[in-house]
Amino acid sequence: MREVEALARQAREATQAMAQASPGVKNRALQAMAQGLLDRQQEILEANAADLSAAEGKGQRPAFLDRLRLDAERMRGMARGLHEVAALPDPVGEVTGMVRRPNGLWVGRMRVPLGVIAVIYESRPNVTADVTGVCLKAGNAILLRGGSEAIRSNTAIAAVLTASAEAAGLPKGAVGIVESTDRAAVHALLTLDRHIDLVIPRGGEELVRTVREMSTIPVIAHEKGLCHIYVDAGADLSMAEELVYNAKVERPGVCNAVETLLVHNQVAGVFLPQVAARLEAAGVELRGCPTTRKVLAHLPAATEKDWEAEYLDLILAVRVVDSFEEAVAHIRRYSSGLAEGIVTADYHRGMRFLREVDAGAVFVNASTRFADGGEFGLGAEIGISTQKLHTRGPMGVRELTCEKFIVLGEGQIRDSRGA
Amino acid sequence: MREVEALARQAREATQAMAQASPGVKNRALQAMAQGLLDRQQEILEANAADLSAAEGKGQRPAFLDRLRLDAERMRGMARGLHEVAALPDPVGEVTGMVRRPNGLWVGRMRVPLGVIAVIYESRPNVTADVTGVCLKAGNAILLRGGSEAIRSNTAIAAVLTASAEAAGLPKGAVGIVESTDRAAVHALLTLDRHIDLVIPRGGEELVRTVREMSTIPVIAHEKGLCHIYVDAGADLSMAEELVYNAKVERPGVCNAVETLLVHNQVAGVFLPQVAARLEAAGVELRGCPTTRKVLAHLPAATEKDWEAEYLDLILAVRVVDSFEEAVAHIRRYSSGLAEGIVTADYHRGMRFLREVDAGAVFVNASTRFADGGEFGLGAEIGISTQKLHTRGPMGVRELTCEKFIVLGEGQIRDSRGA
Repeated sequence: MREVEALARQAREATQAMAQASPGVKNRALQAMAQGLLDRQQEILEANAADLSAAEGKGQRPAFLDRLRLDAERMRGMARGLHEVAALPDPVGEVTGMVRRPNGLWVGRMRVPLGVIAVIYESRPNVTADVTGVCLKAGNAILLRGGSEAIRSNTAIAAVLTASAEAAGLPKGAVGIVESTDRAAVHALLTLDRHIDLVIPRGGEELVRTVREMSTIPVIAHEKGLCHIYVDAGADLSMAEELVYNAKVERPGVCNAVETLLVHNQVAGVFLPQVAARLEAAGVELRGCPTTRKVLAHLPAATEKDWEAEYLDLILAVRVVDSFEEAVAHIRRYSSGLAEGIVTADYHRGMRFLREVDAGAVFVNASTRFADGGEFGLGAEIGISTQKLHTRGPMGVRELTCEKFIVLGEGQIRDSRGA
Repeated sequence: MREVEALARQAREATQAMAQASPGVKNRALQAMAQGLLDRQQEILEANAADLSAAEGKGQRPAFLDRLRLDAERMRGMARGLHEVAALPDPVGEVTGMVRRPNGLWVGRMRVPLGVIAVIYESRPNVTADVTGVCLKAGNAILLRGGSEAIRSNTAIAAVLTASAEAAGLPKGAVGIVESTDRAAVHALLTLDRHIDLVIPRGGEELVRTVREMSTIPVIAHEKGLCHIYVDAGADLSMAEELVYNAKVERPGVCNAVETLLVHNQVAGVFLPQVAARLEAAGVELRGCPTTRKVLAHLPAATEKDWEAEYLDLILAVRVVDSFEEAVAHIRRYSSGLAEGIVTADYHRGMRFLREVDAGAVFVNASTRFADGGEFGLGAEIGISTQKLHTRGPMGVRELTCEKFIVLGEGQIRDSRGA
């Protein structure tokens, strides 16, 4: 795929100028991109209409078409997002930990861009603008590869972004889009490790797995979201009810929604009927462990499959545990490492939960739904990492950079034998 | 390989207790390990003698045998290293960036261990103790796989470390060693991604490449060290001579030695004869570009192969450049990303070099030989990363940890629609 290789080479060549671009130039480019999207809205909406009619022709379902659809409000949303990213602090060039060594050398770390980031995503065309904004702000070049159903929309958006960015002084090649919808293009992209520094897949489990398997480039991804809330003995049960209700019902189709509820046996008799009535009234289907079903006899039995399930739907698995330790052990076994929460009034168990639960975000007395870059104050989010290396949890602008050592000397030389 | 799988599972099971181990317990374990090495020195030296005689029997060269050899002094060195690691600050549990969000949530990041780290290394048996100390200090479990020539020494050392660590209160399984010298054992290890979080290969280019190709686990490695020093127009030429001499001659076989010298044409006529005389007197072979050979007519011509060479020997490629930009472009093209240096008296070009050169460590007016965890003040070093993700440059204890988000609430729920 010579097209993909050429794009990646251009992106690599753009990295030097991107890394040197001042915060002002980058911010003006982001603002110009926002303005460009509004000024050239008509051509983007026309391209989107063509995508929509092709998708309708293929019999795509309404939810799919809704994700694909752009309108004036969504265009304004994209533009607003770019302005918000422009307003964020610029992490590039930050120097930290500068210390003077015994020999007089100054040693510290300077934050720099990663280089070239490839983002592979599915049907929402607004992702094109969102991820481009975050990557450029961090001083990286970006290669975009969206879903084939949105190819006309994505290409139209990328054309506007590219033109606006270049007009504002960013280098040619800083934004590239793979226009081929051939799967071979993805494969070609994922093996260009000499040009691309990081791949971020944004989409379902299958996309993430495929990217991981094919890529010779480091990947940061959000595998899935199997989140738990544990209601501790002695917890404020009305708070617990609100948190569980919010984490399950407010937006059940997202990764930080709760999928399994763990309840301490000391409070199960009171709490389960109360929370079940509230959830069932909202249309939630509950599935219970044997002890849960002693309290709530009408529930179907939860099986091993339920403990492993990311429902992304109005379904909740419920298990009664005999101890804090049993709750933590359940979470260690089944957690996807995204977000885990405890509802407790006990200082010691709150502290232990924070320390002992291994996830990107650990919550005490708050809804897991807050596991989000915006809610955490990162400004904008390019995705969520459920892995441990480089970054965990929501990823913002800063997470798309790395640090190098800088050393300032006055002629120091090393003597290994003497040192 | 059921042995390897069982070791990895034990290591995974040890992670919970390791992550919770207090700094005091970990430090006492490291001190006990140091004492154990000295107390049981005799059995380790006997195992080492058996490795040495087997290696001699295979006709291994003196340099190889020297790397393999342990003696009382090297045993003391290992013990001292463990005491030094014990004395370092403990990064686990550090909470940073704790901020209050508009809804009253406190959001911050807590530093936690990575989990299970596998280290695959070559013939120096002291690595067994060195890497174990750093991994345990960071709260990780470790799996060791040394070279087959040192298997008796490594196994004897690991037995002492394991017994001492457990006696001091660290969990069983926190230190595991793969005793099989079968290559299938390495392959099995590298595909246990459900138990192992990170693989660090320590050894030559071939080992690193093999590990990268086979591993389904994230790898952090030091690929190679092709370091440059650029002597700028107007530089202090006697300082430049000292720095180049030190970076080439003091220890030519290591990764942070200089391999290519770049000299601005304004100073080439004066500097090249001066530095060449000094280097040649120390036995360094110089190879020059055409312009260099106009000044130093006796030099052989440097070819493309020389610009790409990590000599690890008393050889230096020399190129004259017409500008700062040409020097930076040469470095961008050929650098391995380990350490790069400039010798300059110009403020602006010093600043530009720091910003524009993309390497794990960038030096102004100091020898590249300082690219080392100890010299940078990290205390101990488990290796050097020439990649960008997670960490670049020398890796110490802190680089073997990651951060998770922690969120402290008082019942906050999320309203996406209202937010």
